[in-house]
Amino acid sequence: MNKTLLLLLLSVSLFAQKSFKIASPTDQISIQVSQGADRALKYQVFYKAKEVIAASDLGLTLKKPALELRKFQILGVDSTIVDGTWKPVWGEVKEIRNNYKELTLHLKESGVLMDVIFRVFDDGIGFRYFFPSQDNFNHFIVDNEWSSFTMTGDHNAFWIPGDYDTNEYTYQRTKISEIDALAAAAKEKDIAVTSLMGKNFVQTPLMLKSVDGLYVNVHEAALVNYPAMHLKLEGLEFTSALVPDAVGNKAYAQTPFNTPWRTVVVSNKAEQILASKLILNLNEPSKIKDSTWIKPQKFMGMWWEMHVGKANWPLAGGKHGANTENVKRYIDFAGKHGFDGVLVEGWNTGWEDWFGNWKEEVFDFVTPYADYQIDTLTKYAASKGLKLIMHHETSSSVTNYERRMDAAYQFMVDKGINTVKTGYVGKIIPRGEHHDSQWMVNHYNRVAEKAANYHLMVDSHESVHPTGLHRTYPNWMAAEAARGSEFNNAPTLGINAEHTTILPFTRLMGGPMDYTPGLFHMNLNQFDSTRTTKVRSTLAKQLALYVTLYSPLQMVADLPENYEPKLDAFQFIKDVAVDWDDTKIITAEPGEFVTIARKAKNKDTWFIGSITNATARNMSFDLDFLDPDKTYEALLYRDADDADFEKNPEAYIVEKRLVTAKSKMTFRLQRGGGCAISLRRLN
Amino acid sequence: MNKTLLLLLLSVSLFAQKSFKIASPTDQISIQVSQGADRALKYQVFYKAKEVIAASDLGLTLKKPALELRKFQILGVDSTIVDGTWKPVWGEVKEIRNNYKELTLHLKESGVLMDVIFRVFDDGIGFRYFFPSQDNFNHFIVDNEWSSFTMTGDHNAFWIPGDYDTNEYTYQRTKISEIDALAAAAKEKDIAVTSLMGKNFVQTPLMLKSVDGLYVNVHEAALVNYPAMHLKLEGLEFTSALVPDAVGNKAYAQTPFNTPWRTVVVSNKAEQILASKLILNLNEPSKIKDSTWIKPQKFMGMWWEMHVGKANWPLAGGKHGANTENVKRYIDFAGKHGFDGVLVEGWNTGWEDWFGNWKEEVFDFVTPYADYQIDTLTKYAASKGLKLIMHHETSSSVTNYERRMDAAYQFMVDKGINTVKTGYVGKIIPRGEHHDSQWMVNHYNRVAEKAANYHLMVDSHESVHPTGLHRTYPNWMAAEAARGSEFNNAPTLGINAEHTTILPFTRLMGGPMDYTPGLFHMNLNQFDSTRTTKVRSTLAKQLALYVTLYSPLQMVADLPENYEPKLDAFQFIKDVAVDWDDTKIITAEPGEFVTIARKAKNKDTWFIGSITNATARNMSFDLDFLDPDKTYEALLYRDADDADFEKNPEAYIVEKRLVTAKSKMTFRLQRGGGCAISLRRLN
Repeated sequence: MNKTLLLLLLSVSLFAQKSFKIASPTDQISIQVSQGADRALKYQVFYKAKEVIAASDLGLTLKKPALELRKFQILGVDSTIVDGTWKPVWGEVKEIRNNYKELTLHLKESGVLMDVIFRVFDDGIGFRYFFPSQDNFNHFIVDNEWSSFTMTGDHNAFWIPGDYDTNEYTYQRTKISEIDALAAAAKEKDIAVTSLMGKNFVQTPLMLKSVDGLYVNVHEAALVNYPAMHLKLEGLEFTSALVPDAVGNKAYAQTPFNTPWRTVVVSNKAEQILASKLILNLNEPSKIKDSTWIKPQKFMGMWWEMHVGKANWPLAGGKHGANTENVKRYIDFAGKHGFDGVLVEGWNTGWEDWFGNWKEEVFDFVTPYADYQIDTLTKYAASKGLKLIMHHETSSSVTNYERRMDAAYQFMVDKGINTVKTGYVGKIIPRGEHHDSQWMVNHYNRVAEKAANYHLMVDSHESVHPTGLHRTYPNWMAAEAARGSEFNNAPTLGINAEHTTILPFTRLMGGPMDYTPGLFHMNLNQFDSTRTTKVRSTLAKQLALYVTLYSPLQMVADLPENYEPKLDAFQFIKDVAVDWDDTKIITAEPGEFVTIARKAKNKDTWFIGSITNATARNMSFDLDFLDPDKTYEALLYRDADDADFEKNPEAYIVEKRLVTAKSKMTFRLQRGGGCAISLRRLN
Repeated sequence: MNKTLLLLLLSVSLFAQKSFKIASPTDQISIQVSQGADRALKYQVFYKAKEVIAASDLGLTLKKPALELRKFQILGVDSTIVDGTWKPVWGEVKEIRNNYKELTLHLKESGVLMDVIFRVFDDGIGFRYFFPSQDNFNHFIVDNEWSSFTMTGDHNAFWIPGDYDTNEYTYQRTKISEIDALAAAAKEKDIAVTSLMGKNFVQTPLMLKSVDGLYVNVHEAALVNYPAMHLKLEGLEFTSALVPDAVGNKAYAQTPFNTPWRTVVVSNKAEQILASKLILNLNEPSKIKDSTWIKPQKFMGMWWEMHVGKANWPLAGGKHGANTENVKRYIDFAGKHGFDGVLVEGWNTGWEDWFGNWKEEVFDFVTPYADYQIDTLTKYAASKGLKLIMHHETSSSVTNYERRMDAAYQFMVDKGINTVKTGYVGKIIPRGEHHDSQWMVNHYNRVAEKAANYHLMVDSHESVHPTGLHRTYPNWMAAEAARGSEFNNAPTLGINAEHTTILPFTRLMGGPMDYTPGLFHMNLNQFDSTRTTKVRSTLAKQLALYVTLYSPLQMVADLPENYEPKLDAFQFIKDVAVDWDDTKIITAEPGEFVTIARKAKNKDTWFIGSITNATARNMSFDLDFLDPDKTYEALLYRDADDADFEKNPEAYIVEKRLVTAKSKMTFRLQRGGGCAISLRRLN
């Protein structure tokens, strides 16, 4: 890191108004922090000359000691510039530049020393509060944080309702002034546990687009030892709304203490929002010194067949999916097609009585059902070149899980299993805590740390919104933490056609998502004729999601028997990479379409995914990112001309083209459709 | 167990009033259960013809499903008689008779099947609710339990304030009508964490004495998977007040489910209250199959010197007591005098910042301070024939402790340490839970179970009131769970002279107490001349407590340098047994005096302890429990004639007498005094 001191603009007006301004390395973004006569601090964010965040609040209220930290004496101001690069263990690109200017205001109020630290990047800003070690102020309890984000107009917003316990809502597209979280939530019937915060509360990442075409994304980075930030809306001002614990406190802190970063990513191009590495850059470097054991993976799951009613999780009932023979079938198929693993859900005792009663002793994570011969299966999987993936559904009885984690992880090590999918379905125990409260945030981070000690990779479901911590814990490879593909089978709202075009602008801003794409059989009455649920996506779009929804852990979600008849389309899933040297966001618009090209790790092979919402559209773009002197064989897996996510979702065409860097790629996305392309260098 | 069917008296009145009556094996105690026209059930308890518990309520209110279970359809009635004996792993007697009649009412209300089960012993009764497995009723949440205990007059009561988090109050002696828990608690300044329930709430064991001399003790037995029962007083009726969890629920239950037993021990002789084994008999037999590793112990503690200001727990500050040299000094002394162990507090890192901030990550239980060479010390202790005793102060961060228990217990095993003193000072984490709530009750029981898996003995401090679970978990050997001797150094109320005469009738009804007697230096300004605290007991009384306050783990609490000048008195502590073949309660009156004789395990040696409150008195009793044909050397450790707990507490006389079974033993207890006697058979 290259740190140099920077000069600031400092103006002191006649009325004791102080203001500090600092711009990003190329002056694209700037912030101004001003102190009024009342000693309150406000910050503004500018995109070039344009105000993006109007004067917005800073500060906290503490409960113990009871202090308002909202008006300050400014003791001093520091600034630095940082420009460096770092290499992620895995990722969308092989190297990330971290280039920002930093402004630190050293403050004092009620005897308490604290800093507000701003970092200004060319694609946005982050700020956090820091409480240094000091005499007479050590432990404290946070009651409220007042950080706000005041918009400059009634933007279009892509949002989900503020909720302490779930982020699995359908995204809403409304004007800011039309946000009504309770009305939106009232349409949802398929989410296990909800704790709504009120009509005017939304979650982050919050995606906004101004009428004049500026894209603004509000989220947080490095959520460590603090509750998740949701947002309370009043007028055009979104204010931090921290998730409380069982007794109503927000955070227990001790100096030296950092809050997470509050982030605003800004661009006049939607593509640059998706390309931003701001949130990753605001996280700490990896804590895992030897990360050679961390491997991106494609895996199949003994999972979807339970969602569609062919099998079930419990042994009781006669439809137990996780039996040795059935899992062997998945191993055979996954091994034949070269995948890395097979996730097996329902393998362990407890599923007969696991949900809905706030029961503490449910699973022990080490006792397979009698019909699941785990040693036989791990050996069988190894003989086919793959590993089983462990499933730890905690049923949100987290006290129980924490008591058993060491034994459960040692069991995995003993069985040669090195990836675990965790799940948090249900009301949290410790009772009164929430999925998004500080205690649970600490739990998820503890899981990442402890799993790292055992050299285990983690894929968490129903966990708090990711905030870029996969930089710090690269073994915490993916999370669900949003409405995932399983909701295709939810009777009420399902997954609408625009959902996956919004996810990259919202949920994925924080990190990889285990969305579980790859469904080939769209009518979900296959095993239960009474079902009316359908996958509202074309088959080609399911393929494209492997590129547009970034994750180093990608599930191959459908059943072997649903892939077998369509092995030509399935070839894309076999081929697509899960780790990348480079990524180009070709074109994107939240709620409308997303087209992304990615270069496979250490290979001159590219994969492109392009998806649309319920609107059909023609796509056309240059392939100028390809090696200029080479020819590529492009395999297009595209919607058939009569494909339609509602009427004819499974109609696809596999088409071969020869292209170069000078070619224009054109294809049509049908309604709810997509196009997946592999580009193999020929010469 | 001998079970035979028993005939009941059953009367059905003209007004559909049903009543069922059952008497104890020798008809000493009886109960009558009656159903009024409103279908509510009431029970009464009789001592011979005398009503002890007037018509009192039965039933529960559930929260989920929301049901009032207070009026019932009686589906049937069963009864049995049981007479058997069992041998405790350790105890006050070598064999315990379990002889009762049982009455079970099979009930139905709102579609729910439940039983009320009464057991009637010759010294009292117990009752519990049982919910059998049944269709359409499985999980449920208890909102309130209505079990009440209606007294027949304005008895004298020995009570402490109802509190969710502490039982370390000074006992009050008032009429029932004069109970004011808030006024009593207002006088306490030295208890770390309190959560008072209100003016008219008291804790169990509650000791009562009627004006005509009937002794009544109300408590509970087998507190498993349920919150502790405190009592709400209205008029003369005490009603179960269950401790809530973080969200206000009382208990999460699943059929088949038993509540703990609600117990009433009754006698016209105070001594028979102390001799009662009713609570033990209502607990389940030992779950520990091989209990050969469980050993009653006398141990010294590197502990009191920190209370009196000679040393301190943290390393920082320059007064660290748990340093290798100082602990060797204790090992030398304890080894020389033949004790079993040395407890060391302050051995592990974390004490610099352990209390008062609801901090979660405090101790790790495996990291000694740099000046504490644990391997050196465990070997040194072994060379002197004793073991170190581990200390796990959890600071009530129980989530942290549960995460670390396996590692902590394995660390003990690795170090050859097999006894742990646990501590729960502070506000509980999970935040919102209480020391006495269901989650914590389950925790204490989990500690006992897990410790048993590692062959570890447990001595818990600041834990819930014991309820006889030492029968089920004989490795959970003792608890503090009341105001212990450490309060001698508390500035406000300290330990008053009557306290130890009340403890056997209250706290000890539930099980052994680690009171930590044996203080020889009564003026506590020894190392800090500013202190005004004093031990309000004579030295001879401190000796007598080893007999009157039963525990299989007895600390030798004072400092080696305080014992050295008084080795003649110290001889009693060296000699006194900690496990017994037999116990005779010679004479006792709550708040006044207690005299108990116990025969050492497998030896013809008796020890007698006799203590008084602030009143001096002459004691005289027969020794007819001695072997009739033998002569015994009695060593009396008695108060000197001028001893007085306030003016001259350390004055004692050691006196030898030869006695037989026909002898009368006489001595005088001075104010706040006591007498300890060892009786060694000579022929």
